[in-house]
Amino acid sequence: MKILQLQTHVYKEKEKNLKQLASLLAEHCPAMRPDLVMLGEMFACPYDNRFFPVYAEPDGGDTQQFLAELAARHGIYLAAGSVPEKDEAGHIYNTAFVFDRQGRQIAKHRKLHLFDIDVEGGQSFRESNTLTAGDSITVFDTEFGKMGLCICFDCRFPELIRLMVLRGAQIILVPAAFNMTTGPAHWDVMFRSRAIDNQCFMVGTSPACDMDFTYHAYGHSIAVSPWGTVLSEMDEKEGAALTDIDLSEIARIRRQLPLLSARRTDLYTLK
Amino acid sequence: MKILQLQTHVYKEKEKNLKQLASLLAEHCPAMRPDLVMLGEMFACPYDNRFFPVYAEPDGGDTQQFLAELAARHGIYLAAGSVPEKDEAGHIYNTAFVFDRQGRQIAKHRKLHLFDIDVEGGQSFRESNTLTAGDSITVFDTEFGKMGLCICFDCRFPELIRLMVLRGAQIILVPAAFNMTTGPAHWDVMFRSRAIDNQCFMVGTSPACDMDFTYHAYGHSIAVSPWGTVLSEMDEKEGAALTDIDLSEIARIRRQLPLLSARRTDLYTLK
Repeated sequence: MKILQLQTHVYKEKEKNLKQLASLLAEHCPAMRPDLVMLGEMFACPYDNRFFPVYAEPDGGDTQQFLAELAARHGIYLAAGSVPEKDEAGHIYNTAFVFDRQGRQIAKHRKLHLFDIDVEGGQSFRESNTLTAGDSITVFDTEFGKMGLCICFDCRFPELIRLMVLRGAQIILVPAAFNMTTGPAHWDVMFRSRAIDNQCFMVGTSPACDMDFTYHAYGHSIAVSPWGTVLSEMDEKEGAALTDIDLSEIARIRRQLPLLSARRTDLYTLK
Repeated sequence: MKILQLQTHVYKEKEKNLKQLASLLAEHCPAMRPDLVMLGEMFACPYDNRFFPVYAEPDGGDTQQFLAELAARHGIYLAAGSVPEKDEAGHIYNTAFVFDRQGRQIAKHRKLHLFDIDVEGGQSFRESNTLTAGDSITVFDTEFGKMGLCICFDCRFPELIRLMVLRGAQIILVPAAFNMTTGPAHWDVMFRSRAIDNQCFMVGTSPACDMDFTYHAYGHSIAVSPWGTVLSEMDEKEGAALTDIDLSEIARIRRQLPLLSARRTDLYTLK
């Protein structure tokens, strides 16, 4: 199974981001033949509280239709990063959609843990100033088996990843946008440890860094094996990375180093 | 607060290991003035299923008394790695004891997750061939606040570390003995990720590597801050490392990057 991660520049204009995506897919899909293409968090909306309400669309909006059409045109699974979504009551969510090879929407995840941090001399951000948190855990079926889906700060919580894996997810997709404070300190170790602890594949895709913008994304889109090996990692610049995933590795690692089956569920329970 | 980690050679003779410890404490304590001294897993018994039954002592045995006396003599907390312990029914446990500055035993932890692995072309071991698993989670009080205690493979399970932290542990002590297969692949990332996820100090102490023995310990005794910074790490050889722990860092990190308080306990519960 081949996963193509697109670490794109985020333009201020939504349309320009969507056109860029169409053009990247037209360039890469025929050559690389990916099964699944994955984008970064807020790939079509600058990551800033000022923009989320302006760029937000209702479920089923134009952007979703555009993405569905792209998935169908190229016959790919499209894990389309995340976009701002608004509901009828006016709440805005950070929402990830996944489309299948026919362009059918097969997953929708609203970010569960909002990104509110204030590091001395480093990054500050309060998503909760504009966004509302989702309320459900997302695991979905594909022809390759079950996958889990969460967004950036969600991945900070080991309980969530563990629950998705216990519900059958073999690959966890994480559209994300760490920054120049938390990225160097925590990005790699978080993805590697989640993979090692849960003996699953972890795939994190970020937008590219734009030093001219207010939020400096760390980039470093990454794919990690169930043994914790980094299969692919970019730098902070725009890029495309194709990773070959051998799903049989999961069973092999779990047999050799039994972790999930060795949990002491008599002493702790996670539900 | 100062923690001294002793990464010692494990001799075949129990007595020789205890004498070595007494001599190291006599050498280092007056000079370094540690508050807590920590030893590796099975620091006085070669890590091999053949030896555990032979070296095992009942609770309160000679080794414990010797360790208690050393703690009192030097006025230190002594987290005395782990030793094989046998109960009246003949079960053998991998057990960690902690003594306070007066030599009183203030914690006892029996390894909860037995180390049974069989990596192709790598490490194989089955603790469950000789050992019985414990059945309780260990958090204890000190003058510095609460600490958690678990042994090696126990630390593989994020649920356990999380529960100790939710019960108030600020420092997690992990006597351990990874090997040349799992050590390079997982040791650092495990200690760093547990510290980052739980915003606590993680301290792992291993015996030194002995390539003439059947089990090749990875060494690399490590101390990690709540931000995931490696404060101290040894190589595989014998050594002593003193680490200054600033406990106020915990509150500062938790305020700047709120993780524990941001858990979605409405969506997942860990008990």
